[in-house]
Amino acid sequence: MRLLRFGQLGSEKPGLLDADNTIRDLSGIIDDITPANLSDEVLQRLGQLDPASLPIVEGTQRLGPCVSGTGKYLCVGLNYSDHAEESGMTPPPEPILFMKATSAIVGPNDDVVLPRRSEKSDWEVELGIVIGSETKYVSEQDAIDHIAGYCVLNDLSERTFQLERSGQWVKGKSADTFGPVGPYLVTRDEVPEPNNLHLWLEVDGKRYQDGTTANMIFKVPYLVSYISQFMTLMPGDIIATGTPAGVGMGQSPQVYLREGNMMRLGIEGLGEQAQRIVTPR
Amino acid sequence: MRLLRFGQLGSEKPGLLDADNTIRDLSGIIDDITPANLSDEVLQRLGQLDPASLPIVEGTQRLGPCVSGTGKYLCVGLNYSDHAEESGMTPPPEPILFMKATSAIVGPNDDVVLPRRSEKSDWEVELGIVIGSETKYVSEQDAIDHIAGYCVLNDLSERTFQLERSGQWVKGKSADTFGPVGPYLVTRDEVPEPNNLHLWLEVDGKRYQDGTTANMIFKVPYLVSYISQFMTLMPGDIIATGTPAGVGMGQSPQVYLREGNMMRLGIEGLGEQAQRIVTPR
Repeated sequence: MRLLRFGQLGSEKPGLLDADNTIRDLSGIIDDITPANLSDEVLQRLGQLDPASLPIVEGTQRLGPCVSGTGKYLCVGLNYSDHAEESGMTPPPEPILFMKATSAIVGPNDDVVLPRRSEKSDWEVELGIVIGSETKYVSEQDAIDHIAGYCVLNDLSERTFQLERSGQWVKGKSADTFGPVGPYLVTRDEVPEPNNLHLWLEVDGKRYQDGTTANMIFKVPYLVSYISQFMTLMPGDIIATGTPAGVGMGQSPQVYLREGNMMRLGIEGLGEQAQRIVTPR
Repeated sequence: MRLLRFGQLGSEKPGLLDADNTIRDLSGIIDDITPANLSDEVLQRLGQLDPASLPIVEGTQRLGPCVSGTGKYLCVGLNYSDHAEESGMTPPPEPILFMKATSAIVGPNDDVVLPRRSEKSDWEVELGIVIGSETKYVSEQDAIDHIAGYCVLNDLSERTFQLERSGQWVKGKSADTFGPVGPYLVTRDEVPEPNNLHLWLEVDGKRYQDGTTANMIFKVPYLVSYISQFMTLMPGDIIATGTPAGVGMGQSPQVYLREGNMMRLGIEGLGEQAQRIVTPR
């Protein structure tokens, strides 16, 4: 299933995308794509619905983040060796973890607002994991069972704030709108090979990132197991699994986002995002 | 006002502590100490109640975290020069920020569970700021108006996970139970001098930390203003403002928490916490 949330900010309804790429309204079945509705039980129940029995949603719809109520947005740093190299950093012996403020989360096609005094705002296409059930000290073997599904993420990053402002990366990751999530939460049964997906990102039509999750240093089951040794993952929590080479900081000369730029990014089987860059009011 | 939440985990009710230190039940007035109920309007309305008109809560009550629905738990690192020195680190030119997972939050007197493979679990008494209204690019002058109140925090920290496991401190800060919050949310009108409060922490009766918030490098209004340049603070968000000297890592030889240890900690005017250390089931 490809689950989504459609409608205006703060009043999104749940939906699913049918085989013809038509949005079907799920609001008669569940209240929203909430953490509680990410359990295997609910997802199986939704999977048994005939999409044709659900109301068609007409017209062009804004999409919200594909899951609501996210309690933690965790990011894995330097998880592609080519990106570590372009960042001038050494691939880590074990995953680097940091957090993005959940207040940064927006819909997949919402405008991205450069924070005030931004000098080096940058892009990062990433495979997102959405947790489906409480996950604590889980083994690598059992980890996949705790994943509700996957989505596209853009882990926007202000490099000055992240790297030149006295430490801890959260400072550069957490501006409002720096967390587009979606368009779809694709349930795990439809993503048998999360560690072998093409992912890419373009700015104004120029392709900067063009990689595959096969190049992740630490793979999806390992990451979920690893993180669950340090904290309990809850339904709705998001894990950004790292970005391949091709971020703006890695260009020569470096390239950063400016007002009017248009980003497009996508992951094989998970859909696409598009964001326009705007400056603060 | 001293607001609190009493009752069993997950079913806490709102209350306030009256002048005789008796808990009065607020559940007939508000549903809980939620982010929405931290606005000036609601707090002023609660402040106009006669506590004697509210039902007395009898018996010994478990206290929950003094605020529910916290979306972000932000921490300021190395904000006391004496603590930076004992940690072998240089006081930063601007505040260091990192996050604690909100899933770590517990009541002020709940057991603290050492995470599996913990070798160096440590304590940190800290003044907590609880945000009352949406806060974005706020000036230092206006920052105090965005604070609902203050509370005692113990920013428990596993030093191996924090400092020896490939980076970013969140890894050592986020274990379940590593975030006792409370006992009270003391509204800002009752804390005119947040930058001049005595704070202390004892383990098994030995006083390890004994400091004053007057020694914070970056003061309360500055911190709120500073953080709001990087992300929007929301009602219910918690800021841990750093810890004074005397953590276990700073002892010679170093001292870390072990099963059966009892921590007691407090801040002048904000009440006390007490936590027993237990090992995982």
